Amino acid sequence: METVSQVLDSIDDVGRDPRRGGYSRPVYSAAELDLRSWFIEQAQRRGLDVETDRNGAIWAWWGSPSSSGPQALVTGSHLDSVPGGGAFDGPLGVASALAAVDKLRARGITAGEGGARPLAVTAFPEEEGSRFGVACLGSRLMSGAIDADRARSLTDADGITFAEAAARHGLDPQHLGADPQAIDRVGQFVELHVEQGRGQIDLGPAGGAENSVAIGTSILGHGRWKFTVRGQGNHAGTTLMSDRADPMVAAAQVVLAVQRVAAGRDDARATIGRLQPLPGGTNVIASAVEMWMDVRHPDDSVTAALVETIHGKAQIAAANEGCTVTLTEESYSNTVHLDAGLQSRLHDLLPQAPSLATGAGHDAGVLAAVVPSAMLFVRNPTGISHSPEEWVERDDADAGADALADVLEGLL
Amino acid sequence: METVSQVLDSIDDVGRDPRRGGYSRPVYSAAELDLRSWFIEQAQRRGLDVETDRNGAIWAWWGSPSSSGPQALVTGSHLDSVPGGGAFDGPLGVASALAAVDKLRARGITAGEGGARPLAVTAFPEEEGSRFGVACLGSRLMSGAIDADRARSLTDADGITFAEAAARHGLDPQHLGADPQAIDRVGQFVELHVEQGRGQIDLGPAGGAENSVAIGTSILGHGRWKFTVRGQGNHAGTTLMSDRADPMVAAAQVVLAVQRVAAGRDDARATIGRLQPLPGGTNVIASAVEMWMDVRHPDDSVTAALVETIHGKAQIAAANEGCTVTLTEESYSNTVHLDAGLQSRLHDLLPQAPSLATGAGHDAGVLAAVVPSAMLFVRNPTGISHSPEEWVERDDADAGADALADVLEGLL
Repeated sequence: METVSQVLDSIDDVGRDPRRGGYSRPVYSAAELDLRSWFIEQAQRRGLDVETDRNGAIWAWWGSPSSSGPQALVTGSHLDSVPGGGAFDGPLGVASALAAVDKLRARGITAGEGGARPLAVTAFPEEEGSRFGVACLGSRLMSGAIDADRARSLTDADGITFAEAAARHGLDPQHLGADPQAIDRVGQFVELHVEQGRGQIDLGPAGGAENSVAIGTSILGHGRWKFTVRGQGNHAGTTLMSDRADPMVAAAQVVLAVQRVAAGRDDARATIGRLQPLPGGTNVIASAVEMWMDVRHPDDSVTAALVETIHGKAQIAAANEGCTVTLTEESYSNTVHLDAGLQSRLHDLLPQAPSLATGAGHDAGVLAAVVPSAMLFVRNPTGISHSPEEWVERDDADAGADALADVLEGLL
Repeated sequence: METVSQVLDSIDDVGRDPRRGGYSRPVYSAAELDLRSWFIEQAQRRGLDVETDRNGAIWAWWGSPSSSGPQALVTGSHLDSVPGGGAFDGPLGVASALAAVDKLRARGITAGEGGARPLAVTAFPEEEGSRFGVACLGSRLMSGAIDADRARSLTDADGITFAEAAARHGLDPQHLGADPQAIDRVGQFVELHVEQGRGQIDLGPAGGAENSVAIGTSILGHGRWKFTVRGQGNHAGTTLMSDRADPMVAAAQVVLAVQRVAAGRDDARATIGRLQPLPGGTNVIASAVEMWMDVRHPDDSVTAALVETIHGKAQIAAANEGCTVTLTEESYSNTVHLDAGLQSRLHDLLPQAPSLATGAGHDAGVLAAVVPSAMLFVRNPTGISHSPEEWVERDDADAGADALADVLEGLL
């Protein structure tokens, strides 16, 4: 039986990014398509029946789903990554689910037979939103949390729409969108994920087995907004400083305002990690700057107030530089409190596991609106994620798969 | 006989940039290669003998160059553009030279015969430095102003070296570099260029014929520096504001320092127009930010002092954010005072034309170190350049070609 680390080793070379370090596996890129093929092959090798749904999520079934029989138990995560991300964010959950299937089988359990419900392992597309801008796009589509027309018209950096990308990979763009039949088959969803901050390492000594796996309580509300600052493009040599309307100067003030406003409020996080001056030449005063803001706070009304404050400061900064600024919301997810009953079941099944809130977004947070959902977090000894430095020790990965198998066995 | 505007109309659709507006014609891109082919075809149609030199500059000869005979009179400019640039920066000088050849022929003049010296129309590659980072790369190579090894190792955004790009387009990378034989053939160089600031329009009423063409006096010293700010890449949701070392926040402070330091010094211009966070994801705190700075001042020692001041402020900003910063010079050109004798001849030939200093860099400024060089500027009614809003009225373009023909006739 392969360990989780051995399963992950087989995709160690897929989508490496020599420039940024780590992995770049945006949805429907060559790398992510390789991972999808790998997942299908791994599932079929385990005798699971694989289907891809209308929104591009892959389902690997152990036992047949049925509209008349018991609802299935579903576990899984995603395969796509942020640019220059780590090896575990997403794939750890998929690999752990595959390993858990092996463990259940070794324990003599057969899903979908003898009173056990069917079990599915899933991989949702575009969880990171790194290509089309909206995180958890696959689970949002399936659950109806995003309008299908809006999803179809999302574009990547090359101007390719999500509808075009989906069509290139065998989906019918007209069939994208809410899929209540797929949801009706699901009784509970359990997502295992690498922990993405210091939550687990701050709970106790590194290497202590008691904190290697934690049970999720809530997912921090988070949203993405796009600023477009417009000024007057011009020549960097001939244009006097006093004659400029430089959107880069205004954008820099917005970056600082974002940092200061968030730092002034407990528990708030706000980030500009993506910024693009247009046209982007060294000897050219930019005509516009596009930049994307990520804001999170446990209280959704505080998030809204933070964004409003930042927007006001951005308008002042732009006006002072003779520029204009627009702000548009690209996506927003309320703070999600995961199903209390399911959390309680998981604590019964994993009595050692501590509780942990997460600041990262997850498909489980989207699906929680339509299906009782739970999360397991595996310790990340660096406390760093969305970076090549994200890490999981092999012992912790094995502990995570064991815990997932225990949870699945208990819930089946 | 075609007017300059008619000559330019034939390349109106080459290299348009729908995203940025205007034109993107980086050296050895499909668009710039189209322009090179167009120039060769236009020159051959006029009976000129075309050669491409070891550094990729195109020379279209009217009369044969000879090491024993009189040195040639040379005019021309460049075909490449900044990203999202205007239609005139570069091509106006080439098209005006072609139109001037027609005008000279119509006046019964034949270059290279009957006491008239040979005449060449040239197009220098990578004047903007928009692909490989060093402006005037072709003229720098020919004149020995850049080391050939350094030029060969320059890379574009895709990691392609200049040596590789040159080899793909038929040049021998080992033969790049100083070309004293090519320079020895040249007696004077006259470059006609669109004016890139408000210099000409501020001289008098728009539309007044007396200011449509100006004679260059000096080219402002200018250089390019690259900042790399390094911090700690991490997850935008899980990393508390107090735990961050965000290079984007430090970079924003540098952008503001650049603006403030330049604004505090008469005649200084400093710009950040190109900036790239790495990895560049919305939900990712950047691990590094690369950005490029353009600084110009008439006094080279002031430019050096400005850069030193900015560097010091950048180091403080980086340290305050727990980041580090490095600054490297990518290119530098001293302020160039164009040949006084040649300027005087041009004033004799164009008695109406005012004098004008330029804040933009030009191949004529590089060649001035090895050959007496002059510049003619054609009025730009918007005062805007390196932008789709750069403009030249048809009457002014015709006046420019007439002036260039008068100068060439007088100097031949």
